[in-house]
Amino acid sequence: MLSVAIIGATGVVGQEFIVALDKHPWFEVKAVAASERSAGKRYIDALRDSSTGILKWHQRTPIPEYAKEMVIKSVGEIDARDYDLIFTAVESDDARVIEPRLAEHTPVISTAAAFRYEQDVPILIPGVNDAHAELLEVQREKRGWNGFIAPLPNCTTTGLAITLKPIQDAFGIERVIMTSLQAVSGAGRSPGVSALDIFDNIIPFIPKEEEKVQVEARKILGKFSDGRIDDARFRVSCTCTRVPVIDGHTECAFVETSRDCEPDDVKHVMLKYSRGVSIKDLPSAPADYIIVHDDPSRPQPRLDRDVNDGMSTIVGRIRKDTAFERGIKYVLLSHNEKMGSAKGAVLLAEMLKVRELL
Amino acid sequence: MLSVAIIGATGVVGQEFIVALDKHPWFEVKAVAASERSAGKRYIDALRDSSTGILKWHQRTPIPEYAKEMVIKSVGEIDARDYDLIFTAVESDDARVIEPRLAEHTPVISTAAAFRYEQDVPILIPGVNDAHAELLEVQREKRGWNGFIAPLPNCTTTGLAITLKPIQDAFGIERVIMTSLQAVSGAGRSPGVSALDIFDNIIPFIPKEEEKVQVEARKILGKFSDGRIDDARFRVSCTCTRVPVIDGHTECAFVETSRDCEPDDVKHVMLKYSRGVSIKDLPSAPADYIIVHDDPSRPQPRLDRDVNDGMSTIVGRIRKDTAFERGIKYVLLSHNEKMGSAKGAVLLAEMLKVRELL
Amino acid sequence: MLSVAIIGATGVVGQEFIVALDKHPWFEVKAVAASERSAGKRYIDALRDSSTGILKWHQRTPIPEYAKEMVIKSVGEIDARDYDLIFTAVESDDARVIEPRLAEHTPVISTAAAFRYEQDVPILIPGVNDAHAELLEVQREKRGWNGFIAPLPNCTTTGLAITLKPIQDAFGIERVIMTSLQAVSGAGRSPGVSALDIFDNIIPFIPKEEEKVQVEARKILGKFSDGRIDDARFRVSCTCTRVPVIDGHTECAFVETSRDCEPDDVKHVMLKYSRGVSIKDLPSAPADYIIVHDDPSRPQPRLDRDVNDGMSTIVGRIRKDTAFERGIKYVLLSHNEKMGSAKGAVLLAEMLKVRELL
Amino acid sequence: MLSVAIIGATGVVGQEFIVALDKHPWFEVKAVAASERSAGKRYIDALRDSSTGILKWHQRTPIPEYAKEMVIKSVGEIDARDYDLIFTAVESDDARVIEPRLAEHTPVISTAAAFRYEQDVPILIPGVNDAHAELLEVQREKRGWNGFIAPLPNCTTTGLAITLKPIQDAFGIERVIMTSLQAVSGAGRSPGVSALDIFDNIIPFIPKEEEKVQVEARKILGKFSDGRIDDARFRVSCTCTRVPVIDGHTECAFVETSRDCEPDDVKHVMLKYSRGVSIKDLPSAPADYIIVHDDPSRPQPRLDRDVNDGMSTIVGRIRKDTAFERGIKYVLLSHNEKMGSAKGAVLLAEMLKVRELL
Repeated sequence: MLSVAIIGATGVVGQEFIVALDKHPWFEVKAVAASERSAGKRYIDALRDSSTGILKWHQRTPIPEYAKEMVIKSVGEIDARDYDLIFTAVESDDARVIEPRLAEHTPVISTAAAFRYEQDVPILIPGVNDAHAELLEVQREKRGWNGFIAPLPNCTTTGLAITLKPIQDAFGIERVIMTSLQAVSGAGRSPGVSALDIFDNIIPFIPKEEEKVQVEARKILGKFSDGRIDDARFRVSCTCTRVPVIDGHTECAFVETSRDCEPDDVKHVMLKYSRGVSIKDLPSAPADYIIVHDDPSRPQPRLDRDVNDGMSTIVGRIRKDTAFERGIKYVLLSHNEKMGSAKGAVLLAEMLKVRELL
Repeated sequence: MLSVAIIGATGVVGQEFIVALDKHPWFEVKAVAASERSAGKRYIDALRDSSTGILKWHQRTPIPEYAKEMVIKSVGEIDARDYDLIFTAVESDDARVIEPRLAEHTPVISTAAAFRYEQDVPILIPGVNDAHAELLEVQREKRGWNGFIAPLPNCTTTGLAITLKPIQDAFGIERVIMTSLQAVSGAGRSPGVSALDIFDNIIPFIPKEEEKVQVEARKILGKFSDGRIDDARFRVSCTCTRVPVIDGHTECAFVETSRDCEPDDVKHVMLKYSRGVSIKDLPSAPADYIIVHDDPSRPQPRLDRDVNDGMSTIVGRIRKDTAFERGIKYVLLSHNEKMGSAKGAVLLAEMLKVRELL
Repeated sequence: MLSVAIIGATGVVGQEFIVALDKHPWFEVKAVAASERSAGKRYIDALRDSSTGILKWHQRTPIPEYAKEMVIKSVGEIDARDYDLIFTAVESDDARVIEPRLAEHTPVISTAAAFRYEQDVPILIPGVNDAHAELLEVQREKRGWNGFIAPLPNCTTTGLAITLKPIQDAFGIERVIMTSLQAVSGAGRSPGVSALDIFDNIIPFIPKEEEKVQVEARKILGKFSDGRIDDARFRVSCTCTRVPVIDGHTECAFVETSRDCEPDDVKHVMLKYSRGVSIKDLPSAPADYIIVHDDPSRPQPRLDRDVNDGMSTIVGRIRKDTAFERGIKYVLLSHNEKMGSAKGAVLLAEMLKVRELL
Repeated sequence: MLSVAIIGATGVVGQEFIVALDKHPWFEVKAVAASERSAGKRYIDALRDSSTGILKWHQRTPIPEYAKEMVIKSVGEIDARDYDLIFTAVESDDARVIEPRLAEHTPVISTAAAFRYEQDVPILIPGVNDAHAELLEVQREKRGWNGFIAPLPNCTTTGLAITLKPIQDAFGIERVIMTSLQAVSGAGRSPGVSALDIFDNIIPFIPKEEEKVQVEARKILGKFSDGRIDDARFRVSCTCTRVPVIDGHTECAFVETSRDCEPDDVKHVMLKYSRGVSIKDLPSAPADYIIVHDDPSRPQPRLDRDVNDGMSTIVGRIRKDTAFERGIKYVLLSHNEKMGSAKGAVLLAEMLKVRELL
């Protein structure tokens, strides 16, 4: 068993890590860290509002037994050398300070954007660009660290990149235009999206989100060689919106391909890719990496997001595109709190372990 | 005053006509028609469920006084010769039967799709393609009618065409890619969208909607000459989704233009177009035909849909597109139950009257 | 194995029966019946809209394999003698005609209200008033049937009666005042509640619902003796509202008791009752019949309804009442589509089998 | 014109004051105060997020012109002697410090709970207990202030007290049991209710709310004599819940009366009371103080809350109660952001001016 610490363990993403690591066959949570305010408290007490008695636990499954009684450390108390692996679930500004300190000694898998865009930092999606993990060795050497920082992509990039990968491999990609309809859970909960702002409403703007997806998609689908990643050459344009949905990002993609392809071809290559995906035997991998619906009313976030515990990317409505001479369009659904967040980070850790980077 | 009949007056769109024509300076409602089941009842009684006492009136303003006591006719009882103008708010299958019978004698303005795609039928948006109204004369002559059928576009086409028009005029258009986030009111109420299907959910499919928008946009923005409309040459591709919003269709548009343009240029031509729009002095016209927001979080359906009683098209987030060498992207909001429905039909009637087609 | 037929198998409640009976250890579904329109089709085909390809399956779990290929019969084709037990999921008007015909030969467990208020018909909640099942023998004899009709209560009565039972036993009940906040799934789906009517809204009226709960609660908690049920003597008053929640009825109860009781006493008797409940070892029984929360923000429908697959009644906020000299108030949550519907009916069948009434 | 200051002018309630006082015939806003962070900025600039450009204005009407350019003062800069009247929209803890300092010199009308329960402080609802305003003179004298503190009730108390008043006058009241279904706007917006917590959900607990309503209703409907208020004698018990509704508190009331009354009698006394209400000619008073619906599906928050700009209390479903020998039950709707908040406070100011207390 590898010993693991979770930084930011009381927040929404931290809670997801607590759940994703419950009874994990390879990783054992040895420490949970949070802000000074929570440090020294038992995990369950830190979640309870002492004035009202309300428990601020936001997962549908109960708090795993292993976590309830763990005493929370402050981030400063964590000595990275005590752990084989550290998961971080903190804001980008904090990540910028905390993560390098930890990575000096120990591998860090991060849900924050802080280091994603640095040249020696890959943005890894297990099953899509595992080969980019080699860049972590470059990073180690260059920075003189024993560990490294391996960030997840933005949760909106995840499903897009997963579905583009088989298209890119089979037909080539020239242009990607994507409109996202993103769930409120993507904004967290403190404060997250106020009910007053999103009931019966769409907010057609998520600060910095479009830029992230546009940059990340090309980096993830780029090519690793000579110790560096060459971004993919296709162009990407996104509009990211917030919709009144609890969990699950829906994305409407229009893809101009380099070579002709019919919807059935695309379905075929997606399913073939899914069956052969590199990470299919890892503990947190879903039974289906990609699911393709023929029912045109699917995917729907409420009906489909929890399939395979949120680890599958669900595709539907694959049609010939009418704006491009060669192109297809489709709709995808990705669970932003599962494959796009903590459980996706655990899957990444599993992939890195198999590649002997942990 | 022109005398007017409303066909389908008890349904949701019919109720909107009742409201849109209240105290109208030019049009006076002389008859309301509905199904056999309602015929012979006073309007207000036809709306009341006799077993529960619930009034099925779905507008926020109360039933206008003029309508309450009107006795509903069956559609068969309507003699078109008794009216100067007829508004229809019926399903397409019914429209196919009813409308030609009425148009033989009297101009019909229709919210149904039944005749939109016939060669001698223009799809009119007042302020956008008023010149296409000439095709109504061709239609009259060809069909040997005294009247004509003038259909509105699909409510999703309306806002898109309105915003594309000034771009087309100023910069030319090569490609339009659009994802819509459509309100539930667009599906009516009997049965409309079930709450069970759309709460906390997106339905990424609206049967036939995308095809309608793709065809209609090119027809509306086409050129009328020699007694026919040549469709615009640009390519259009849409994905239409249903979202948990009551009223107001949000659309995310990506436009490849023929000539370079900056976001500020686009804002400028939209506002200039809005100020000079042909129909600006008509009774149902809004103070602003197009409104452009600088606040990047707008337009939002709940905040913006009721501005100018839902008759304005609201634009925001005009940005340089990153998928096309020359292109822009933006978000628009159009009130599907107002400019996109009955009140838009009344505005169309006003335009036709000014052009002496009524 | 007892052989079972489901009448009304394609509707929402029928679909729940299909799920609730999947892999059941005692009952095997041998026939599914629906309207003439569906008869002769395979079950999965009957659910698919042939024009759009949309599958009208409304459960979160996929269609069980056993049901997919079953060929649907029309109701008229069902010969009751071929089955040991029949579950019906039809509207009350249809139930009034269909159920007696079936009950002549075979026990019928019904989700309809049609027969609930007849003197020789018990309204059974397994675990609450099992002894009332004896009335089924009276019914058999009186009507000369081989079978019987055993209806479930209204789904709003279920949780109320379950929580009142231990209070009644321990402290006596004088008055019950209850306001319900009912989920939209309680109204079904064809048409059910239109999204337009319930988004951002409360509908403070559900036709006939309050009368049902008021009558049923007193009958269920009444005493069976001398071949008849004497209704409980307490008074009941309800206001039933519809709220924008998908599943799970929340009820706010105020109870005047005959004897003094403290909130802790009430919690104690509820939990004790739950531990000893008669049906606790049946296949469909939940691990906990009643769950009592100390966290004052619970129960919440979205967080608590799926606990124990919706078969538990969840109680919270037990407090001293301030309107009555002796009284308590609390909030309860009951899953209207599970314990209050098909799966509750299956639990009832299990109880009747154990009592040798099947 | 009386000169007025608004304390807490940038928050949600403060914004409502800005709107409620726009073009007011008697009051002129001379100063707006907020936190140090906003002080020195123009009002419109203080609302704009400088990093994203998003304007944090939460009203449906645009920012009134008079307010846009006003320079915000810090609370400490406000010299109460410069104003004839001060409206405060701050949290209770801040109110406890700020309001006495201001009231030393100038009348303060407060939306906070800080002073509501002190013996020399009336809780005023204009039209219900105007006579309690005399207690303000007692307060002045006792505390040696030139001004006074006059708090509004909790927004949930307002509609309840308004509807109980005519019942109390006509039939006497013994017991009141009330369950509220409260809108999210009642919790404000910073942070207010997170969308994640309330979508598809009910939160059956609002800290301290029930106690407030129970105490306030009896104080407001108490009797003022000999310089003090004797609380009304009836008993009150509430359960307060939060529901997914934007604006408008729905309350289900069960009232045991001292004397027999039929639903029609109650409707009659409510409407009679409404027609003769003391404040009916004041500038902010609604056309109807109480509206009674016969349609049993009303009131509904989305349809009814904005009637008379949210200043009417809407009643429906008046029925004979079945739990009490003498009693009635009904449903009421009160706009928590209008009559229950800033605009109600302005109406109170108008009433105090007419009574020459300003």
